[in-house]
Amino acid sequence: MNFASDNVAGAAPEILAALLAANGGAAAPYGADDLSRRLERRFAEVFEHEVAAFPVATGTAANALALACITPPFGAVLCHEHAHVQTDECGAPEFFSGGAKLLTSPGEHGKLDATALEYALAHTPFGSQHAIQPAALSVSQVTEAGTVYTPAELAALAQIAHRYGLTVHMDGSRLANALVSLDASPAQVTWRCGVDVLSFGATKNGALGAEAVIFFDRARSKELLYRRKRAGHLFSKQRFLSAQLEAYLHDGLWLSNARHANAQAARLAVGLRSIPGVSLRHPADANMVFADMPEEMIRRLLAAGASFHRIGGEDATLVRLVTAFDTDAGDVDRFVDAARAG
Amino acid sequence: MNFASDNVAGAAPEILAALLAANGGAAAPYGADDLSRRLERRFAEVFEHEVAAFPVATGTAANALALACITPPFGAVLCHEHAHVQTDECGAPEFFSGGAKLLTSPGEHGKLDATALEYALAHTPFGSQHAIQPAALSVSQVTEAGTVYTPAELAALAQIAHRYGLTVHMDGSRLANALVSLDASPAQVTWRCGVDVLSFGATKNGALGAEAVIFFDRARSKELLYRRKRAGHLFSKQRFLSAQLEAYLHDGLWLSNARHANAQAARLAVGLRSIPGVSLRHPADANMVFADMPEEMIRRLLAAGASFHRIGGEDATLVRLVTAFDTDAGDVDRFVDAARAG
Amino acid sequence: MNFASDNVAGAAPEILAALLAANGGAAAPYGADDLSRRLERRFAEVFEHEVAAFPVATGTAANALALACITPPFGAVLCHEHAHVQTDECGAPEFFSGGAKLLTSPGEHGKLDATALEYALAHTPFGSQHAIQPAALSVSQVTEAGTVYTPAELAALAQIAHRYGLTVHMDGSRLANALVSLDASPAQVTWRCGVDVLSFGATKNGALGAEAVIFFDRARSKELLYRRKRAGHLFSKQRFLSAQLEAYLHDGLWLSNARHANAQAARLAVGLRSIPGVSLRHPADANMVFADMPEEMIRRLLAAGASFHRIGGEDATLVRLVTAFDTDAGDVDRFVDAARAG
Amino acid sequence: MNFASDNVAGAAPEILAALLAANGGAAAPYGADDLSRRLERRFAEVFEHEVAAFPVATGTAANALALACITPPFGAVLCHEHAHVQTDECGAPEFFSGGAKLLTSPGEHGKLDATALEYALAHTPFGSQHAIQPAALSVSQVTEAGTVYTPAELAALAQIAHRYGLTVHMDGSRLANALVSLDASPAQVTWRCGVDVLSFGATKNGALGAEAVIFFDRARSKELLYRRKRAGHLFSKQRFLSAQLEAYLHDGLWLSNARHANAQAARLAVGLRSIPGVSLRHPADANMVFADMPEEMIRRLLAAGASFHRIGGEDATLVRLVTAFDTDAGDVDRFVDAARAG
Repeated sequence: MNFASDNVAGAAPEILAALLAANGGAAAPYGADDLSRRLERRFAEVFEHEVAAFPVATGTAANALALACITPPFGAVLCHEHAHVQTDECGAPEFFSGGAKLLTSPGEHGKLDATALEYALAHTPFGSQHAIQPAALSVSQVTEAGTVYTPAELAALAQIAHRYGLTVHMDGSRLANALVSLDASPAQVTWRCGVDVLSFGATKNGALGAEAVIFFDRARSKELLYRRKRAGHLFSKQRFLSAQLEAYLHDGLWLSNARHANAQAARLAVGLRSIPGVSLRHPADANMVFADMPEEMIRRLLAAGASFHRIGGEDATLVRLVTAFDTDAGDVDRFVDAARAG
Repeated sequence: MNFASDNVAGAAPEILAALLAANGGAAAPYGADDLSRRLERRFAEVFEHEVAAFPVATGTAANALALACITPPFGAVLCHEHAHVQTDECGAPEFFSGGAKLLTSPGEHGKLDATALEYALAHTPFGSQHAIQPAALSVSQVTEAGTVYTPAELAALAQIAHRYGLTVHMDGSRLANALVSLDASPAQVTWRCGVDVLSFGATKNGALGAEAVIFFDRARSKELLYRRKRAGHLFSKQRFLSAQLEAYLHDGLWLSNARHANAQAARLAVGLRSIPGVSLRHPADANMVFADMPEEMIRRLLAAGASFHRIGGEDATLVRLVTAFDTDAGDVDRFVDAARAG
Repeated sequence: MNFASDNVAGAAPEILAALLAANGGAAAPYGADDLSRRLERRFAEVFEHEVAAFPVATGTAANALALACITPPFGAVLCHEHAHVQTDECGAPEFFSGGAKLLTSPGEHGKLDATALEYALAHTPFGSQHAIQPAALSVSQVTEAGTVYTPAELAALAQIAHRYGLTVHMDGSRLANALVSLDASPAQVTWRCGVDVLSFGATKNGALGAEAVIFFDRARSKELLYRRKRAGHLFSKQRFLSAQLEAYLHDGLWLSNARHANAQAARLAVGLRSIPGVSLRHPADANMVFADMPEEMIRRLLAAGASFHRIGGEDATLVRLVTAFDTDAGDVDRFVDAARAG
Repeated sequence: MNFASDNVAGAAPEILAALLAANGGAAAPYGADDLSRRLERRFAEVFEHEVAAFPVATGTAANALALACITPPFGAVLCHEHAHVQTDECGAPEFFSGGAKLLTSPGEHGKLDATALEYALAHTPFGSQHAIQPAALSVSQVTEAGTVYTPAELAALAQIAHRYGLTVHMDGSRLANALVSLDASPAQVTWRCGVDVLSFGATKNGALGAEAVIFFDRARSKELLYRRKRAGHLFSKQRFLSAQLEAYLHDGLWLSNARHANAQAARLAVGLRSIPGVSLRHPADANMVFADMPEEMIRRLLAAGASFHRIGGEDATLVRLVTAFDTDAGDVDRFVDAARAG
């Protein structure tokens, strides 16, 4: 009953198999191998758009590299106040960009509010040498509250951002979970909504450690080669990153993995909602459930061996439950039963 | 006949097996898993010294993180003019340190010359606000010329560095090859010689992508946790890095792999030396051979399907040949035969 | 009737005279001149405490250099949401620190609220590698709202900060105005309240361009020499900075200048308060008055030739009025008359 | 007999007078004052070319800001091994650029050798993600060896640089001395030779502390406003920088000051050359003389009260003698007499 995060899961067997298969014989290093060279094409097919794609091993690297390519040192990235880039990356965007600022904006259920964004930008002193200059908007899809932006919501945010000259970045560490939730195509929730640069996540959904920075406008990507190497994120044996990503995309593995995770979260949500004293804080659109529960129930669950995080400190009674591609439905049921058992 | 680099090799089967074994069930992320927690102890045993050890995935990350912890932004790292940190990392040490400078020093066969180092430090304006302040010495073991420092040579350099207040870093991306070459223990070529911080390499010698920053003085490591995360080098599923390193150290795999690679390089060196018109530029102490050969011979080898790098440009006639843990002795012999065949 | 800022004023005649006097003959550069060497002693007398003092030319330089010495790249500076370092320095603290973060805290009338600060620190994940680590508290005295912290208020904030291991910085660009307002000694509002590092301002109160970074613990200052030079803030002809600061401190010039400015602000406040439809937003503790006034009154004042800033955009009806050491009482009266005249 | 540097001089009376004159009344801050606004036009006249001009207070600031605008963090600046930016700025270019690298090139008498530059660029792995990418060439005019590039020499260097896509920066901290030496116009030694960005110096030649970054292509300057503020180099009372620069350019003051300094250096060179045992190391093209002299003579001069620097350490017998706009011919003669007196 480990619902602490989707990163407590191991790797999907299909992806491990691909690693083994990639191991045969010598291969050119640093992305010049066959696997790596065909990966960009694969992404282009998946997204129905020309892309420049750069594998890296962590989501923080993907986000920070992407943002550094679109934000000057005197620039600002606008993001939700609970965005991962703001709260959980120990200042990676600031480091990679050379000291840019993150300016946060509020919004219900982890989603940026378009009106608040518009207001903030309308009151920004663009062109004033005294003020950091907003250069990028970063949206998380799935959000940190487990909700999923609709394409219309994304398009509205991107339109505002573009109107003020900002480039739009999506932190898609759980992109597959969003696609499944929306039953939308990759194109529909990215470039068609105005997303310019994407952190494409695979680690949380079955890879060992593999993500990609994807530019929908290749021209914007020209600094990335150097920034990636300089940040120590160019792998000599890059085939082992590319193999993970190829297997992840192969035969819809990423979507079926996400479908499973989302289904378990839905099962969890249904179960918890039926228990008196439990309420869900946010819509459980994807693979995360945020539940307010009595302290006594939390202790009982912990005693029963469940793992999860309290949100807001050690004595908080809001808990976050995350499901993954390998979450066992029996574990979900046992968790709900244990919650109800009091 | 691929002698382009030791990073064209795949992964050792023992390490892949360890990855598979590490995959069972949920594990705490970010280094809190069991494998990661016992790894530091394992390193302490191997080095016969307390250590703080931090897995990362690339050698550039290991070097740049290590140097950033011991060099302030206004500091300098002294290194050989051909050091990897100087020539091949696209400025990673400068990036991670916040703009420190690399000051290069000469030396035969890729080794820093102690007299030149002493001279440079004696003529450094320490304490002058106009000048970057030397803070670290970085030595590569194996060197970029394929030579190996003796413990006495290392100790002499470290002694000079310490006398001037510098911290000593070793780029040990091929440390195992050096140990085998010297028939020395890990302790004998590191902290006993005065090395304070080590980039411990495994990727070139059988891992998929796994290195570690190792501090022999834990007190110096306190910034590393934050710097690693901030650089995107903290892996959520860190067990997959730790598993590689544990398997690498297990049962002497690292040393037997290196022994094989070194033996093939020696076989190559012996073969090439017997061919008129070929001369070896540097002692082939480890798993690299630098050979001057006639252009006609180079073309013949390329035509025969051999892969290797020319050093010094497209028409240079100095070639670098690197062997790895999986180099086939038959390939070595075929290469030598093809060289001789003219 | 120019109340746009205290930096629209020129230089005090005493300070210009000191510049002329400093010009005689050759002088050692980079702070080795006699004037510069005795300046630190002068500051020690003024503050009744040993100090390390470093002249620079701008307030942004003083703030950013001070903060960079006490905040690592993975650190955070806590400050008021309207602090100058946060809103008006185009990211200078982020730049100088190598990418540290500014975390803002609220508070009435430009003053940090001790309860909010304590709450924020109590909920900070100190020691977590995922989170930027708070390292410094920055308070502005005079605040950006024109209010002045009492020594007790400062001590309360500093005590909280110190309890959590933070270093306390004061942005004292208008320190003299605060001293005069409180009728307190320099020691009473700085190190005796727990301030560790001070940006000592002179430019806004009569200098041409001269500030100083003052460390009350000399040990904390050891990086400053290098950081200042590296930032281009070491003056070759430093005597011209030191002369300004010496004259500023001489014979109480700084206090008499500030007394005049504060008196004019008080006169302005009294006048405006007497006008129906005008209300003061914040206590006018020092040399700034924030007044809400009808749009029609603002237009009338502008038409009468008055200069001042609207706060919050082009159509805001909150105006900021700043007086300086050379503000003419007649101008104050004319302004009040023009406001009332409608 | 102070020949330690041209920065031991005070300020020219004309420039001090301009400061006093600039002090009358209120003026818009941050460069919006009348003096500052007309300065750019003045520079355009002087250089016979449209320019974007940004006053700053130190030469290090001018150099580092200029280079940061034309060099990405993963870029390199090529410069002479003895260039001020390389040896005397405590890493300012690295800091401002976010970690770019300075790559040095040799050359006699402080001048870059065109053949060596061409060779270095021809052997640079442009486009390789492993290597820092050369982006700028920085030349010093006057050089650090006191020599002056001819327009033809500059044009040759700039042509090579441009051919490889580099932007050309000139460190003109002693530009006036070069102009006088060459009897050339400002245009002839800058943009007509291919210089793209200039650090225009005034401090060493009579200002208190005033320089300017001058872009001959305004489009390249767009980052400078933000970078300057962010570095703390935007002066609130900018009129006091602009007044210095305006007076410096007025009525040929800069050239007459330089003419005087150069004449004194020539007088010194002639005198020293006539003394047995003394030899000049470099042509004394401008206001610096580098002389090899017997240790005994050096001691005699120091005993006689002369100030100057030994180059290469405390016991070096190469001395650097610098003259300034206010150097007394009597001092020159006394120095030569004292040297000869042994």
